[in-house]
Order: sequence, then structure tokens, then C-alpha cells
Amino acid sequence: MPHGGGYDGPLGIVSAFLAVDALRAQGLTPVRPIGIAAFTEEEGSRFGLACLGSRLLTGAAGPQQARMLTDRHGVTLAQAMTDAGADPAAMGAEPDRLSGIEAYVELHIEQGRGLAELGAPVGVASAIWPHGRWRLEFTGEANHAGTTRMNERRDPMLTFAYTVLAANKEARLAGAHATIGRATVEPNATNAIPSRVIGWLDARAADQSTLDELVAAIRTRATERASRDSTAVTMTSESVTGVVDFDPMLRDRITATLEGAPVLPTGAGHDAGVLASAGVPTAMLFVRNPTGVSHAPSEYATPADCAAGVDALVRVLADLAGP
Amino acid sequence: MPHGGGYDGPLGIVSAFLAVDALRAQGLTPVRPIGIAAFTEEEGSRFGLACLGSRLLTGAAGPQQARMLTDRHGVTLAQAMTDAGADPAAMGAEPDRLSGIEAYVELHIEQGRGLAELGAPVGVASAIWPHGRWRLEFTGEANHAGTTRMNERRDPMLTFAYTVLAANKEARLAGAHATIGRATVEPNATNAIPSRVIGWLDARAADQSTLDELVAAIRTRATERASRDSTAVTMTSESVTGVVDFDPMLRDRITATLEGAPVLPTGAGHDAGVLASAGVPTAMLFVRNPTGVSHAPSEYATPADCAAGVDALVRVLADLAGP
Repeated sequence: MPHGGGYDGPLGIVSAFLAVDALRAQGLTPVRPIGIAAFTEEEGSRFGLACLGSRLLTGAAGPQQARMLTDRHGVTLAQAMTDAGADPAAMGAEPDRLSGIEAYVELHIEQGRGLAELGAPVGVASAIWPHGRWRLEFTGEANHAGTTRMNERRDPMLTFAYTVLAANKEARLAGAHATIGRATVEPNATNAIPSRVIGWLDARAADQSTLDELVAAIRTRATERASRDSTAVTMTSESVTGVVDFDPMLRDRITATLEGAPVLPTGAGHDAGVLASAGVPTAMLFVRNPTGVSHAPSEYATPADCAAGVDALVRVLADLAGP
Repeated sequence: MPHGGGYDGPLGIVSAFLAVDALRAQGLTPVRPIGIAAFTEEEGSRFGLACLGSRLLTGAAGPQQARMLTDRHGVTLAQAMTDAGADPAAMGAEPDRLSGIEAYVELHIEQGRGLAELGAPVGVASAIWPHGRWRLEFTGEANHAGTTRMNERRDPMLTFAYTVLAANKEARLAGAHATIGRATVEPNATNAIPSRVIGWLDARAADQSTLDELVAAIRTRATERASRDSTAVTMTSESVTGVVDFDPMLRDRITATLEGAPVLPTGAGHDAGVLASAGVPTAMLFVRNPTGVSHAPSEYATPADCAAGVDALVRVLADLAGP
């Protein structure tokens, strides 16, 4: 019954190898094999589909669909794999490999300040918030910025701007998270009222009904404003992931091993969430993040906390794989 | 004393040649030579500087500055000219050519519905509104859209969105025009709070003090909102053009020739405005635009109104250049 040890990002990749080194140095002889998993494209930053590697492994994404994904320059995943010397035909679900994993543990820096506020260097994940991405397309009429009277405009930038502010306000009211951090404008010329603005909404909440209500409220407010602006708006779901509750027995065993490390949820998607949804008993360890910042240069953990994270992973793996 | 006949866009280019053909068919022998001017890059759509051709001719733009202008792919104007078989070293002001022009007349579709509302097919320009472009740079802190608490964000997209709506409202209050129709977002990822949003403001008003007050009001509101969002905003003027009053004597002579055609201002910049600012006696003729739309597919004039525009140009040129 092999065990998987996953990692994410620079902290995770070093920690996974350091943990195995430490177990070797301790002279541990695993009763169950330990493996290290490296998944590609967790952020979906090149081909747009988050957790692409783990989704392919579990079958949550099909290989045919994946091969057709394109990056911003129009290069398909199949072409990029071929160029990198990999075989795109070899992609696909591996149920035999999955069914052989008794437990999967992913170490990650916390993407928030929960541990910093609790004063704890290491924590254990309870759940991943349900979350999704929606594409909002605002259409109006391109026109000359200098000559078109204000009351004769059909400017989709106004509807977009209103929706950005409305999404922020609705999320605050709901105790949830909503972000419009990506947009494209057409024709995107200084002296032209746009014909079209596309914005992408990232929304997350602690439970599904809160998320559903949040997204519905944003849709309502965007639609109302579009009516006032004589524009149109459509809102299309690009991906939605329900709540992921990590395996409670595995979590309790880990918190016991770590002598009462705090348990806390996360708003971020992870490969661990994909594996958990596929039925693999899965857990996550978090390392304290003083700024709470993630995906930006000021994300960091102290060397002492990184060492504490490796030590926690060593203890967890020794318990799970050891005699 | 030669006369220049200018044109702009598909209506203008055909009309200028049709007018000369008509004068020939009428057997007119000009007492003063008639020339047709074709200026490049009036919209600044490739190299960013509007009215590039006429600015170079008049010296309002220097050839050294112009050669360094780059398009969105980083190609310099000098390189583009060389690739097209033109000599970038030959660019520059031509004061002798300018001083020989006794009158310059530009025919253009109206970029608004003034003539449509007056029920007139052809009109004469009084002035070009003062106008300018400002670059607004909103900076915050990139962070994870899923995990960053709403009250710990420094999201410049919020400040940008508020400024879009504020610019619209201030312009309405001032009876002026303000548009933010161009924007770029960094890193422009669905799951990231942006680090930076850049927007371009196009603002125009009937007089300089109204324009100054409008821009100041937008700056104030953007700055106030940035303070609330814990972001920063800078606002930089990229180009500002003062009011252009077309030559009153030439205008009166043309309205007399056209038997009381209406006189009306425009919010759009034109090569005619650059020539007027350089001291050339300049006039513009407008042709009725039923939709008022400009720079978009629904911009059009009826064939009858196009013919009326050519006829007006023929009569004006016959008066100015004829015996």
C-alpha cells in the first residue's frame, strides 16, 4: 500500500526531498513505499485549466480535451509536449496508479494569515472552499470618444466597471471572496468607446449555497446596470469546483501525530483537492505565511518555519509509511 | 497662391478626386492651383501619435521623435518606412510648402448627429474642442484571489473601475466628454489580484477651462478612491491640444457660397486642426451622419448626402481657386 507525498511550489519541492532524506538519515525502513508526485500546470497559467496534471491523472479532465488546450500564442498542449520531447498520446487517467495510493499528503505555504494569527508554524487543512471562474462578456457599441454625446453611448466599460465594484461589495457582504483580475478590451484604443469588454470573475465561499448566492447577486447587479447602460452582459461558467473536505480520519491521525496542530480551511484550489475528489484519502499541511500574500513577490516563510514544515512532513510520513 | 483640398477617410478620398473631376468637367480654369493632400496616421492607430503626417509637415512633431515611435510590436516608424521603401531621413517640416497654401479645406463625415438633427446634408466647422489624453496608472499588490481576505487587499482594479465611473459622471455634469476605452492589466490572471492596471483617459470639452476642471475633478476622485483602496494612482498627460478656431473669414466665405449651411463645432481632432494651429487658413465641411456613429461599422452617409458633400466641395473650390 504505497503512500504519495506531493508538493507545490518551491517550498514543497524542496521539502518533499528533504523529508525523504531525513527519513533515510533516521534509518527508517518504510513498511509501505513512499512516492513523490510532481503535477504540471497546477495554476493553469499557460493553458488555462488549473490542476491540469492531477485532473488528467484522475480522469477529471480528458486527454482529448487537454491536447486541444491552447496558450495565449495559440500553441496547443499537444504541440508544446511534442516540442518538449513528450508524447501527447501518452496522456490520460491512470486508475491503477490511483487505487494503489493509501494516503496523499501535500505540503504548502498557507495562502493567508490564519497560522500567523494563531502563532503556529504548521497547520492541517480541513477543507477547500468551493470556487469557480466565470467569464463575463459586456457588449456595447464602438464609437468615437471625442464626438459621441454622453447620453448616446453604449459603453460596455461602464458596465464592466460597475460589476467590478459590485462583485467586491457583494463578496464583503457575504463573507466570501470575489475578484475580477483579468480583462480584455476591444478595440482597446484611447479614442474609441469599446465595443466589448470581457472580464473574468473568480469567486469562492466557505459553502456552496453562499457561493451560489454570491454569483447570483453579481449576475443580477451586472444585468441591471447593463440595462441602464444600453449594453448587454452574458455570464458563463468556465469551471466550478464544489467543496472538498479532506479525509477526516487521515486528518485526525495527522493532528495527533503533530500534537494538536491547528486545523483550518483554504480558499485556494490544489492538486490535493483533485485527488480528494477522486476518492484518494488526502491531507494538506500548511506552513505559516507572515504576510498572507500568495502568488506575488512578498509571499514567504521564515527558514525556521520551513524547517518546521519539513519536520512535520517527516513525522507524518514516518507514521503513515513506517513500521 | 495654391489652395489645398484635404480629405479624411473613404468619404474624403473619393470626394476630393470627384470634386476635381467635376471642376474639370465644368471647364473651370483655376486662377490658383488646387492640390490634394493625403496625410498618414491621422488616428495614431499604429504609432500612437494622432495626426502624425500633418504634425510632421508643420513641425508640430519633430522627425527625430517620430522616427523613434514604435508600434505594438516594437517596430519603429523608421523601420516601417524603410520596409515600405520610403526614406525616414526625408521626414520633416516643410515651411515653404505650408506658406504657399492660401486655404486648406477638409471634407469629413460629421462625427455626431448635429446635421441630422438640423435636417441639413452639409455643414461648416466652427471649431475643434480642446482635448487630450491622459495615462492613469493604478498600482496595488498582486495576491491570490482565492485566499486573500477582502479587507487585506490592495486591488488597483477597484480604483480603476471607480475612476471609469467617476470620469463618466464628471463629464456628464460638465457637459463634456470623457472616455476610458483602453486598459491593460498586470498580471491579468483570473486567480490573481492585479498588481497594476493602466487606463487611458480621453477628455474633451467646448472650452479649455471646462476641460481643465473636468480633468482636475477626475484626478481628485481617482486619488481619493486610491486612498480608500490602499492603492496609488498617477495621471500623466500624453497629449493635450488647445481649442482650434477655424479661420473666421474663410468660414464666412464658405457659408456664403453654400447659402447658409449650418456652422457647428466638433469634438474630434483632425489634420485640419493641425494646419490651422500652424497658421494656415483652414476650413472643414461636414456631411450628415444619420447614426452619429464614428470609428465603428455603423458609421455611414447616404449616397445623396455624399453627392451633396462633393457638390459643396466643388462650389467651395470653384469660389476659392476660380476666376
